[in-house]
Amino acid sequence: MPEVHRRTATRVALAPEQVAAAAARVMARCDELARLTAVPGTVERVHLSPEHARANRVVAGWMAEVGMTARQDAAGNLVGRLDADDPQAPALLLGSHLDTVPDAGRYDGALGVLMALEAVRLLRVPTDDGGDDGGSVRSPFPFALEVVAFSDEEGTRFGRALLGSSALAGSWDPRWWDLTDAAGTTLRDAATAFGLDPDRVGEAARRPEELVGYLEAHIEQGPELDRRGRALAVVTSIASARRFQVVVEGRARHAGTPYDLRHDALLGAGEAALAVERVCREMHHVVGTVGQLQALPGAVNVVPGEAHLSVDLRGELDHDRDLAWRLISAALDEVAARRGLRWSAGEVHVAPAVACAPLLQDVVRASIGARLPGREEPDALWSPAGHDAMAVARVTDVGMLFLRNPDGTSHHPDESVAQADVAEGLRALVEAVAHLAAEPR
Amino acid sequence: MPEVHRRTATRVALAPEQVAAAAARVMARCDELARLTAVPGTVERVHLSPEHARANRVVAGWMAEVGMTARQDAAGNLVGRLDADDPQAPALLLGSHLDTVPDAGRYDGALGVLMALEAVRLLRVPTDDGGDDGGSVRSPFPFALEVVAFSDEEGTRFGRALLGSSALAGSWDPRWWDLTDAAGTTLRDAATAFGLDPDRVGEAARRPEELVGYLEAHIEQGPELDRRGRALAVVTSIASARRFQVVVEGRARHAGTPYDLRHDALLGAGEAALAVERVCREMHHVVGTVGQLQALPGAVNVVPGEAHLSVDLRGELDHDRDLAWRLISAALDEVAARRGLRWSAGEVHVAPAVACAPLLQDVVRASIGARLPGREEPDALWSPAGHDAMAVARVTDVGMLFLRNPDGTSHHPDESVAQADVAEGLRALVEAVAHLAAEPR
Repeated sequence: MPEVHRRTATRVALAPEQVAAAAARVMARCDELARLTAVPGTVERVHLSPEHARANRVVAGWMAEVGMTARQDAAGNLVGRLDADDPQAPALLLGSHLDTVPDAGRYDGALGVLMALEAVRLLRVPTDDGGDDGGSVRSPFPFALEVVAFSDEEGTRFGRALLGSSALAGSWDPRWWDLTDAAGTTLRDAATAFGLDPDRVGEAARRPEELVGYLEAHIEQGPELDRRGRALAVVTSIASARRFQVVVEGRARHAGTPYDLRHDALLGAGEAALAVERVCREMHHVVGTVGQLQALPGAVNVVPGEAHLSVDLRGELDHDRDLAWRLISAALDEVAARRGLRWSAGEVHVAPAVACAPLLQDVVRASIGARLPGREEPDALWSPAGHDAMAVARVTDVGMLFLRNPDGTSHHPDESVAQADVAEGLRALVEAVAHLAAEPR
Repeated sequence: MPEVHRRTATRVALAPEQVAAAAARVMARCDELARLTAVPGTVERVHLSPEHARANRVVAGWMAEVGMTARQDAAGNLVGRLDADDPQAPALLLGSHLDTVPDAGRYDGALGVLMALEAVRLLRVPTDDGGDDGGSVRSPFPFALEVVAFSDEEGTRFGRALLGSSALAGSWDPRWWDLTDAAGTTLRDAATAFGLDPDRVGEAARRPEELVGYLEAHIEQGPELDRRGRALAVVTSIASARRFQVVVEGRARHAGTPYDLRHDALLGAGEAALAVERVCREMHHVVGTVGQLQALPGAVNVVPGEAHLSVDLRGELDHDRDLAWRLISAALDEVAARRGLRWSAGEVHVAPAVACAPLLQDVVRASIGARLPGREEPDALWSPAGHDAMAVARVTDVGMLFLRNPDGTSHHPDESVAQADVAEGLRALVEAVAHLAAEPR
C-alpha cells in the first residue's frame, strides 16, 4: 500500500452549472427513492422486499441513462459498469446501499449511490470509436467505473448487517441462508422469491485483481461537520464494534415484597445501562448504546426476575472499545454483588476497526483541501457507524467521504443534507477519482 | 362500627385430631386444585377457563360433602351456603379466590377457599330437627355460613382484577364486558361460553343487609411472619395503590451519535426506575415496582427515542402513597431537564387503602392472641397486595388473617405454607367466627 503523503489535487474541468444540475438531480432522486417504501408516509425499504426490487429497477434505469451496463448480482446488489478502453481493466467501485431501517431518512445509503452515479456522469467521456453519434461513453481512466448499490447494509430484516457487501467481498457465510425475518421467512426463501439463486451467491464475489478500490460518499451520522461549519470530511477509519446481549437474573416476586428481599433484575439492568453511558463518556472515542431492554415476566405487579439488554460499543480503536467493555463488566459485577443478581453476556457481533486505505484517504483529503480557503487542513473523522466499506475492505482498498448532516442524526426522518454540500461533495468525489487515476500503479 | 377493644377469645371445643385432619385435607386439596391447570407442570388457572370450570365443579362437590348447598353465581363465583336455624338469617362470608396468575403457586387463593370449607366443617352442627339420621347440618350461629370461591381476583386474563368480588359487591361496570384477553375474546363472549348470562350479572350482587361480614385467610405475600417466627397475623388494612404508565420521550438517533447530542429515553427511564426504588426505600410503608419497561424503536443500533415503564405504588396509607408519587415525579422532572427529555404519566389504577373492620380485626386478633405464649401481642400487618376483601368492603365489613409463607413470595411456584400453620390458622378462623357470633349486634 502506498505511503500517505500530501499532494495537490487533480483539478477536473467541471462547469459549475453541470455540477449544480447533478446535485439537484441527486436531491430529487433521493426524494423519488424515498417514495419506494413499505409504509407510506415513512421510508422503509428492507432487503429483498418489493420496494427493494423497485428501487433496483429504477436505479438500473438511471445507470443505463448515463451509459452504464447494469446487472443485479447473485446477492441482489445492483452493479452498473462503465468500461475503460480496455474492457478487461480493473474497476474502481463507487457506491453505497439502497436498503433502509424502518422510519428512515432519505439520505443514509441512497445519497452515496446517487452521488456515485452523478460522478460517473461528470467523468465519462465519449468512446474513441464512437464517432459523433454521441451514444457511447467510456471511463477516461485506466480503470472501469462501477456504481454499486448494495442490497443490505442495515441488517434490518434478517438481523445481520452488510449482507450485500459481504457477498461482493467473497465472505458470504452459507449459514446466513437460514436467518429468518420477523415473519419467519428464511433469507433463502426471500432470495428465491426475489428471483435470486442462492446456490450462485458465490458469483457475486469479486477478486482483488479486478478491483482498484472502493470509494463511498455518505452523510455524517453525527454533528461534527455541522459544528465545525465544514461541508466535507475524509474518513480515517470505521468503528471498531462489539455487541453483547446481557442477561441479568434476579428473582421474580410479588410487587408487595419489601425491598430487602428483592433481587430486582430490571433495576440491575437500569444501572447497567447507566454504567455503559458513564464508562463511555469518561473515555475518548468510544460510544456505547443500550437500544433494547426487556423485563421478565413483564407484569406491572411483579418484581422483574430477569432482564435482557443489548450493549453496542463503538470505538475508533479496538483497544479503547475493549477497555470500555472491561470497565462496564466491572460495573456490572459490582451491581450484581450489591443487588444479589447474576449476569452474563453473549457477544453477538465483533468487528475490528477498518482503516481507510492511506492512498484513498489521501486523494479524498487532497480533493477536499483544494476547496478550502487558504491552507486550512481538511477535516478528518472516524465513523462510529458501520458502512459497506467495512465488508468491502476484505477484497480491496476502501475510502470514504462524509457530507455535513445539519441534523447530526440518521436512521430518522430528520436526516438531511444541503444541495450545496452535495455539489461540493460531487466535486471532491470526481477529483478524488481523477487523482487516483493519476497515481502511478 | 364498634370500637376496637381487646377481648378474650371465645374458645371452641375442637379435638386436636379433628383440626389436624382438616389441615391435612386443606394441604392435599391445594395439591389437587394445582393439577387443574392450563399448563401441565405449572399452575395456571385463569378466569372463565376450562380449568376454572373444573375447579368450580370440584369445589362444589366438596361444599356438598360438608352439607352446604352450592351454586355458581352470575359472575362465575362459586357460593356454598350453610343455613342458620332461620333460613332468612344474614350470612357471614368466608373465602378467597380460585383463579391464579401464570406459573403460580398453589396457595394464593385456593388456601383461603379450602380453609373456609374446613372451618365450616369444624363449626357445623346437626339440625335441631334432624333427629339421628345424621344427614342434615346447620350453622350454630344466628347467621348462615357461606363459602365464596371468587372467580377472578388476579385479573390475569382480562387485565382487570377483582371481577368476581366486584360483581358480588354490586359494583360491576358494564364496560368490562368489552375487555378482551390476549386472544381477542371479549369477557362477554368468554362468560357466555362458560354458561353465564351477562345480562344477569346483577344477580350476583349481595345486599348489605343480607351479610354479616367477610373473613378471608390468605398466605402472607411477604416474609414478615417468617422473620418474626410467628404463624399468623391479623391484617389491619389492604394496600392503598396507584398504577401509572409513564412515557419518556427523547430522540431516536444512530448509535454512533456523541453523548452531548443524545436525548436517550431509555436512560431517562432507567433513572426513573431507580428513583422509584430510592424514594420508596426512604419512606415507610410504601413499596414501588417497575415491572415493565420498553425502549423504542428497540433496535440494538439506535439510541432509544421513547421508553415506556409501569410504576406500581402500594402504601399502608393513601397519604404516603401520594407523597411517594410526588417525590418520584420531582425526580423525573430533574432527570428530564438534565437529559433534555419529556415525560408524562397516565394513571391506570387507583385504589384507596381499605381498612379491615375494627370488629373483625378484633375477633381475629383475639383468636390469634389466645394461642400465643404469655401475654404476647398478636402480630398485625398491612397487606401490600390487593385481595378480594378490597372489593367486598363496598358491601360489608371485611377482615383478614395471614398465614406464614416461609418463602416470603407468591405468584411463584415456591410459595408455601406449613401444615401446622394451616392447623393454627383453622383454629383461629373458627374461633374468630365463634367470637363474632357472641358479639352483641
